[in-house]
Amino acid sequence: MRVLTFLSDFGGASPYPAAMRLVAAPIAGPGVRLIDLTHEIRAQRVAEGAFVLRSLAPECPDGTVHCAVVDPGVGTARSGLVVQTERQCFVGPDNGLLIPAAERVGPIRDAFAIDLDRTAYLRTPISATFHGRDVFAPVAAHLASGVRPSAIGPQVATWQTLGVDFDGGAYHPDHRLFRAQIVYVDGFGNLVTNLATAAFDRHLPDGEELALETGGGKYRLARAPSFGFVERGELCLVGGSHGLLEISVREGSAQGRLGLDIGADLTLQRS
Amino acid sequence: MRVLTFLSDFGGASPYPAAMRLVAAPIAGPGVRLIDLTHEIRAQRVAEGAFVLRSLAPECPDGTVHCAVVDPGVGTARSGLVVQTERQCFVGPDNGLLIPAAERVGPIRDAFAIDLDRTAYLRTPISATFHGRDVFAPVAAHLASGVRPSAIGPQVATWQTLGVDFDGGAYHPDHRLFRAQIVYVDGFGNLVTNLATAAFDRHLPDGEELALETGGGKYRLARAPSFGFVERGELCLVGGSHGLLEISVREGSAQGRLGLDIGADLTLQRS
Amino acid sequence: MRVLTFLSDFGGASPYPAAMRLVAAPIAGPGVRLIDLTHEIRAQRVAEGAFVLRSLAPECPDGTVHCAVVDPGVGTARSGLVVQTERQCFVGPDNGLLIPAAERVGPIRDAFAIDLDRTAYLRTPISATFHGRDVFAPVAAHLASGVRPSAIGPQVATWQTLGVDFDGGAYHPDHRLFRAQIVYVDGFGNLVTNLATAAFDRHLPDGEELALETGGGKYRLARAPSFGFVERGELCLVGGSHGLLEISVREGSAQGRLGLDIGADLTLQRS
Repeated sequence: MRVLTFLSDFGGASPYPAAMRLVAAPIAGPGVRLIDLTHEIRAQRVAEGAFVLRSLAPECPDGTVHCAVVDPGVGTARSGLVVQTERQCFVGPDNGLLIPAAERVGPIRDAFAIDLDRTAYLRTPISATFHGRDVFAPVAAHLASGVRPSAIGPQVATWQTLGVDFDGGAYHPDHRLFRAQIVYVDGFGNLVTNLATAAFDRHLPDGEELALETGGGKYRLARAPSFGFVERGELCLVGGSHGLLEISVREGSAQGRLGLDIGADLTLQRS
Repeated sequence: MRVLTFLSDFGGASPYPAAMRLVAAPIAGPGVRLIDLTHEIRAQRVAEGAFVLRSLAPECPDGTVHCAVVDPGVGTARSGLVVQTERQCFVGPDNGLLIPAAERVGPIRDAFAIDLDRTAYLRTPISATFHGRDVFAPVAAHLASGVRPSAIGPQVATWQTLGVDFDGGAYHPDHRLFRAQIVYVDGFGNLVTNLATAAFDRHLPDGEELALETGGGKYRLARAPSFGFVERGELCLVGGSHGLLEISVREGSAQGRLGLDIGADLTLQRS
Repeated sequence: MRVLTFLSDFGGASPYPAAMRLVAAPIAGPGVRLIDLTHEIRAQRVAEGAFVLRSLAPECPDGTVHCAVVDPGVGTARSGLVVQTERQCFVGPDNGLLIPAAERVGPIRDAFAIDLDRTAYLRTPISATFHGRDVFAPVAAHLASGVRPSAIGPQVATWQTLGVDFDGGAYHPDHRLFRAQIVYVDGFGNLVTNLATAAFDRHLPDGEELALETGGGKYRLARAPSFGFVERGELCLVGGSHGLLEISVREGSAQGRLGLDIGADLTLQRS
């Protein structure tokens, strides 16, 4: 049984996620399971959507097709994209949203631009503002039902990418300074870095103090097993559920304290 | 594979949507796909639910059954209703909620009152406050599984309707004044009118200024391709994703500015 | 067709509910229907989750497996638990979350601790912070697909319970004073007691005034068919959709007025 997922910034309270499911369901047929990843990506935050899609793609079974829509460029000349890896397929706007996830379950094998004249795979007439329903959902459903990606449009060799390095931040045992980037901010204001917890766990002992430097200031924070180990209101560096080190404030918002957002650069220095 | 949809004002955070799905699932059986339209209709706003159901029904495949519950009259003498069109079927309270959607995918072929004594199709005992679970969900699931609407109760020739004209607002090229009604207010405060964008698109050029008159005041606003074309805080008239003209304020709430809600009348006059 | 349900405090806006569904779907296979009960239990409120699970379990068809995760103890030594009744099965942390629901559709027949070394039934490596995805969802999906609970780990004879008496509050016709407990607080601040409406309905006539005493004060309130029968801002005692008497304030929050939460004790006295 194949899986067809949906991710967007439409909001679950809106009728738009349902419109995508309704268009996709009869095309996909009974052999495909529809699963919503989330529709609560903040409006037009492409990098946030890219991070969440990248987080969840490894959980998906072989053959999964993803329909992802965070699309500030809808109605402009930006193309739609189908990205094919060995085991999964990604459909959405060509604005960088799909690439980090595709690379994580990759490598990317082929990519195709969605040809809006191949109306057999689209819902027509195509509206100017809702390509999620009219283009991406039906294309993704056709792919989930067995249509080959090459039928959707011409092959392309390049695509847009984001300026966020989700895979950066490797650990080097002889380094005392680590450059990192914020790749996600969760609902509690925890700042998720691109430093893999597993790589640092053996080297950064709990309790060690580090110097944090951002564009906006310098701070000290301790590596801790969880924010329960520091005082209320104190900054700390903990391993989170994404497998990445996060900057947290016990009973507070690290984002509020540091004023950082996705894409912000920072350094951490051992003393 | 049949589709059975759910729409309500229960809120996704409540256990009530799940209760409806749980009652329906074993009745409907494996050949029916359950799809939530939304459970975030504002509490007891029947016209808002009617608009959303009417928006989504055309996306649904033939044979779809809809279970819709926005029901301020639950526990009173209002009847439950099954409305059958050629290709879709609607189940819910007889308070106007179902009719605009049924007419849009219509014409309406038959309607039946739900007989609360035909307990084979209900969950008993029937509670006073939760007909969604006890009446509408099981009836809708039985219909999706092949029960004929006439088994549910006696045929009826009339039903409640709403005082909102979702299909109004036709364009006439020799008119300079258009009467319209607000039919939906979205989460951003955009006021969706019943003027079909397609009918006006050829005649109202972008940039044209119009005089807007409501019960509460007179305003000027420009026809624009999107609110990005006007100044921050300015009113404009744009084509939205519902295929209808919307009154919007760039980076603001048109509802907050004009104080209008669903059902409000207005006129637009060309100069 | 079997049902596999999910309940958590992760929030529908987070990617965590999707991660559980994605892990479970391919294990469960096409013969299992996945149904979200809710993911909006307030963070770490085990008793709130227990009440909602207990409310919905009776709606579930025979053979249903429940995966419930409200788990402040994740990462500590608390065990995972599988609780088997005649007709349903419950998977989650051993912190009392599952027991009220299991007892309601019970009696409990067997219980098993989840052995984290039986990796065939788990997602490995098991993270410290997300047993919902790594332990409970895959175990529940294996059970839904036919694995016997005894394969999951050693049988246990005891389990944690909550200090909340969901089944308390029996009516005695010769009593004038009733001891009760708050078992749920809904989104409107209505305080749901453990007094079954059906037991009291015949004896407490609408309009009768009662004396309410809590740890924090004494109040008077009337038994009413709904809060529409009292003045704005007034306390009343009404029968709610859970089949239990609720303390409500018309157009206000009873929780805000009385300062009570789940587990609070109170008495109601007839005059």
